Amino acid sequence: MPTLGIDLGGTFARAAVVDAAGKMLASAKVALAERNPAGVVETIAQAASEAVKSAGVLVGGCGVGAAAQIHKDSGVLSVAPNLGWRNVPLGEMLKARLGQPVRIVNDLSAAAWGEFHAGAGRGAQDVLVVFVGSGVGSAIIANGRLVDGAGGVAGELGHIKVVPNGRRCGCGEQGCLEAYTGGHNLIAQTRELLEGGKSPAVTKLSGGDPARITPVTLEQAVEAGDAAAREVYERAALFLAMAVANQVTVLNPARLILGGGVLTHCPGLRRRVVEGVQAWASQTAREGLLITEAELGDDSGLIGAALLAG
Amino acid sequence: MPTLGIDLGGTFARAAVVDAAGKMLASAKVALAERNPAGVVETIAQAASEAVKSAGVLVGGCGVGAAAQIHKDSGVLSVAPNLGWRNVPLGEMLKARLGQPVRIVNDLSAAAWGEFHAGAGRGAQDVLVVFVGSGVGSAIIANGRLVDGAGGVAGELGHIKVVPNGRRCGCGEQGCLEAYTGGHNLIAQTRELLEGGKSPAVTKLSGGDPARITPVTLEQAVEAGDAAAREVYERAALFLAMAVANQVTVLNPARLILGGGVLTHCPGLRRRVVEGVQAWASQTAREGLLITEAELGDDSGLIGAALLAG
Repeated sequence: MPTLGIDLGGTFARAAVVDAAGKMLASAKVALAERNPAGVVETIAQAASEAVKSAGVLVGGCGVGAAAQIHKDSGVLSVAPNLGWRNVPLGEMLKARLGQPVRIVNDLSAAAWGEFHAGAGRGAQDVLVVFVGSGVGSAIIANGRLVDGAGGVAGELGHIKVVPNGRRCGCGEQGCLEAYTGGHNLIAQTRELLEGGKSPAVTKLSGGDPARITPVTLEQAVEAGDAAAREVYERAALFLAMAVANQVTVLNPARLILGGGVLTHCPGLRRRVVEGVQAWASQTAREGLLITEAELGDDSGLIGAALLAG
Repeated sequence: MPTLGIDLGGTFARAAVVDAAGKMLASAKVALAERNPAGVVETIAQAASEAVKSAGVLVGGCGVGAAAQIHKDSGVLSVAPNLGWRNVPLGEMLKARLGQPVRIVNDLSAAAWGEFHAGAGRGAQDVLVVFVGSGVGSAIIANGRLVDGAGGVAGELGHIKVVPNGRRCGCGEQGCLEAYTGGHNLIAQTRELLEGGKSPAVTKLSGGDPARITPVTLEQAVEAGDAAAREVYERAALFLAMAVANQVTVLNPARLILGGGVLTHCPGLRRRVVEGVQAWASQTAREGLLITEAELGDDSGLIGAALLAG
């Protein structure tokens, strides 16, 4: 029986009816008018209802991918930064509203599960997915199952420590990988170069406007030969490449799927990650490894959430 | 039905008959007279026969833990350094000789599985086991299953890279964690201090004899306030503690089981690992974590190998 997948972001709720092979039969997208839990539940229900009507089939179960830390068994969102939520029992609320069993996972796990079943991971049993967007995250599939950990927070690659007492991270701790290599922090570090007057290339590329800086600005400044930009970039590339290589060594996946806006739009950084894995992952782990790109784009989370409910 | 567990080391083969609860009903230990594959198979068969006779029960299946890289599906030992073997089809040979289905895993996975089912991991579904002995290794249990990876080499924590182009490791690569923190390399680094005349405390503790140096010598030299010893030790402690903390962040286990000769005999180093996990693992990952010692000692591998065959 098809299932319902929900992708809950900070501004929209998307819903899709997905068959067991991961094919989307219909989808709908509704803007979040309100951000309080009851309002969000109504918006989700509206998107779900549209998608189900449009597909014209019965659905058996609902999966939700949310940008949040989720308590594994209860479906409580312990922290959802985009929505400003803490300890919201979204699973129970949605179950009552939709009349369906509901499983909630974080958005990255949902996306990874979609890629695993219906995208770049098809046919493998052991897959590591690394996304570098505004943050850095990973999801682990081992023995054909999602590794979500005892508390449901496995895969937090962005919050491994790379420098003891290092740069402050958005999570409140110091020296996290994400504090050096996440898109948000690449921008912050590039703005620091601009504000310190340290990088002629960044000044030129941004026209002196911090708001125009993206991670691509940094990569372009490096390509223009800028020394200060290179220092920030090399550090980020080294930390990210070593971290990914080390996870390949420890997990020995058949596939490494790389995705997320930063790796998509900064091909130089993506190349450094691939070269790092080839140089630093243990020989046996890298021998059987296929490094590939995510295939499903924005639909991976919707599809994965639906499949996790199946 | 009870199963047979084999622990294949470099000098002995041990065999045990183990019930489904992980209780050893009988065991036997036979020295390896010959190290060629046919000779080792005979020695294993002899130990197995003694254990089975002594237990007086039928066994259904045999599991082997071997200090080797094992090709997951075929049971071929691709590299077994202690025995000087390459590409030995031990699984098939043993199956033919014992008339039992045989499953071969590396010794650390076997030990971890023993601890998981019958030792310090009982009752948990997500367990990380880290052993620091002459080498550094780990084993991962997620969703109640051993994570062995696509090629059967998952858990190689000793071969994650901590320094690009760093110290040469026994595996042939450079900058591995094990090259700084494995017992063999702690000894090598301490001998370098002795030979360079750099550490009065090491010279005193060892009586100037490199053969008397153990990892404990290094820890004692640090406790005596020796600066050169401290430098080597701090680097090892930092790398090891960060690596373990980062695996806790990524895997979010319910239990972290610490074992192996170095962590047992160097309580200061063990304390540094525990403190590192408490300081550096992500908050959610460390909140639900229990850090504990291995319980089954030398029998963990025997018991785990038998249980893996069940």
